[in-house]
Amino acid sequence: MQIMMRPTIALAMGDPAGISPELTARLLALDDVAARARLVVIGDRRVLDDGARVATVRLDLKNVFPDADFSKQPDGAVFIDLGHLDPSSIAPSTATAEGGQFALANYRHALTLARDGRAEAVCFTPFNKKAMRLAHPAYDDEISFSAGVVGLDGPASEFNVLGRLWNARVTSHISLAEVAARITTEAVLRALRLTDSSMRGAGFERGNFGREEIDAIEPAVEQARADGIATEGPFPADTVFLRAKNGAFDAVLTMYHDQGQIAMKLMGFDRGVTLLGGFDFPICTPAHGTAYDIAGKGIAGIGATRAAILLAAEMAQKQRRV
Amino acid sequence: MQIMMRPTIALAMGDPAGISPELTARLLALDDVAARARLVVIGDRRVLDDGARVATVRLDLKNVFPDADFSKQPDGAVFIDLGHLDPSSIAPSTATAEGGQFALANYRHALTLARDGRAEAVCFTPFNKKAMRLAHPAYDDEISFSAGVVGLDGPASEFNVLGRLWNARVTSHISLAEVAARITTEAVLRALRLTDSSMRGAGFERGNFGREEIDAIEPAVEQARADGIATEGPFPADTVFLRAKNGAFDAVLTMYHDQGQIAMKLMGFDRGVTLLGGFDFPICTPAHGTAYDIAGKGIAGIGATRAAILLAAEMAQKQRRV
Repeated sequence: MQIMMRPTIALAMGDPAGISPELTARLLALDDVAARARLVVIGDRRVLDDGARVATVRLDLKNVFPDADFSKQPDGAVFIDLGHLDPSSIAPSTATAEGGQFALANYRHALTLARDGRAEAVCFTPFNKKAMRLAHPAYDDEISFSAGVVGLDGPASEFNVLGRLWNARVTSHISLAEVAARITTEAVLRALRLTDSSMRGAGFERGNFGREEIDAIEPAVEQARADGIATEGPFPADTVFLRAKNGAFDAVLTMYHDQGQIAMKLMGFDRGVTLLGGFDFPICTPAHGTAYDIAGKGIAGIGATRAAILLAAEMAQKQRRV
Repeated sequence: MQIMMRPTIALAMGDPAGISPELTARLLALDDVAARARLVVIGDRRVLDDGARVATVRLDLKNVFPDADFSKQPDGAVFIDLGHLDPSSIAPSTATAEGGQFALANYRHALTLARDGRAEAVCFTPFNKKAMRLAHPAYDDEISFSAGVVGLDGPASEFNVLGRLWNARVTSHISLAEVAARITTEAVLRALRLTDSSMRGAGFERGNFGREEIDAIEPAVEQARADGIATEGPFPADTVFLRAKNGAFDAVLTMYHDQGQIAMKLMGFDRGVTLLGGFDFPICTPAHGTAYDIAGKGIAGIGATRAAILLAAEMAQKQRRV
């Protein structure tokens, strides 16, 4: 039965003051998403219904209790109503502790569903980092929060995915002054290995990499090749994405955040996906943020959120066969 | 007379082992270039004729002596034959001291023509940095060499230009570890001022800037605004080029080389121009390099070289009216 083969994806509603409510509603109305994933959406029904009004879509979606066995309701998407946020209490386009608490509770619930085998992947609509920290001062980023919830010990990393092109990075959200000291052979090799294993999980036979020139890289490339990881480079950063765009590589490993993000956002801001790799299940989110400037206007593009769900569904499907 | 109004541009042939000879020949065959600039090409006629064979173009170009008064021959492009390189002695696609000496002699001659008021702008086809250093070990970059030849004391900088979009940078060819320490309020302000004056030289009323977020930037932005320079920001580097591409800015000032170059090369590798700003006359060159991998095959694109000449001609024309 085709319908039973669709992967179950736990979708956490993100920051309620931005475009998350309308994105969630629009996503639920997309036929191609429904055909490829069974969504279990986590949030507050009143916030979702407000989003549906903004997006001008009608939702046909059953509410279920947080601990319900929704696997017995196989006919379509379901909504887990945590009933924890009255939308009239939300200041629009503002980062607040209440907004952060809402997103964090939804996300924690989604992660536990995947951790306990009740969902095969996790997605979330955009979080606002300031709101997350107001709600939970120890909040650092999605990776460390997620690792804490599911009890992950191994390495994890953020990847940016645009269609079939992946961008991994050795360092991420640190100051530029710290970057050079962090580019060690070990760090590069660790990033290459994690990217390779994550890409295999997404169905790539072998990822084909390009990377930027710094001395520490050469030995890591050689070791990765010896490990059977298809690696080329190092290459100058300013032209490697042009070659990747033309199909020369499946993935580019950059040394720090901006190197890759400038290129990836320029090539496809409206369809970029952020993937958290290193977990037992895929975790995907649109690469863009909460877009407070256009929240509530009904004009937010659904492309990146749709791409996030479809990537999560594809990876979950592939991982069943491993 | 329209024909007398065309600016005179001294065009130095670059590295002879790469695509420079064929680019020079193809450029001389372009009607729109001939209509907008009077080219004085400097090199060795035998090397140019070899380039014309590769490019399969016929050249109708008079040779003149190095010290000839070519202003008395107003009918079209002329060639200053320094007679200093036999093409049969050039190892193709190889950086050599002989190749570097050829390019350096041509470039020095072009700069002196402009310095002495006999040309209104300087252009050059790609140099090979390794060959330049083999020929002249003290060679650092185009800016310091040019400043030495013309006796420039003031600040100078490299700009990247793509159509109507400019990219300036606070730091350029230094290691990443050094970047953070060099991003000072003074350095940012100096870059903003030089960009503004260079853009006015290119006919912009006021450049409109975006820039990346580092603490030192804010005060520089405020001071620049107080000086009447239209400046916005700082903005995150990963989305500012997307906004610039959509027309929000005329120029983006980035903090270091890769931030801007990744974006500019992705947006238009085949038409990017490098401009040396801070001199009394424009100095332009294609943003790409010597392309040893395709030299002699007749497949090198002329777009960026054409764009370099047209930008130099436009700026020279504007500066006449100042």
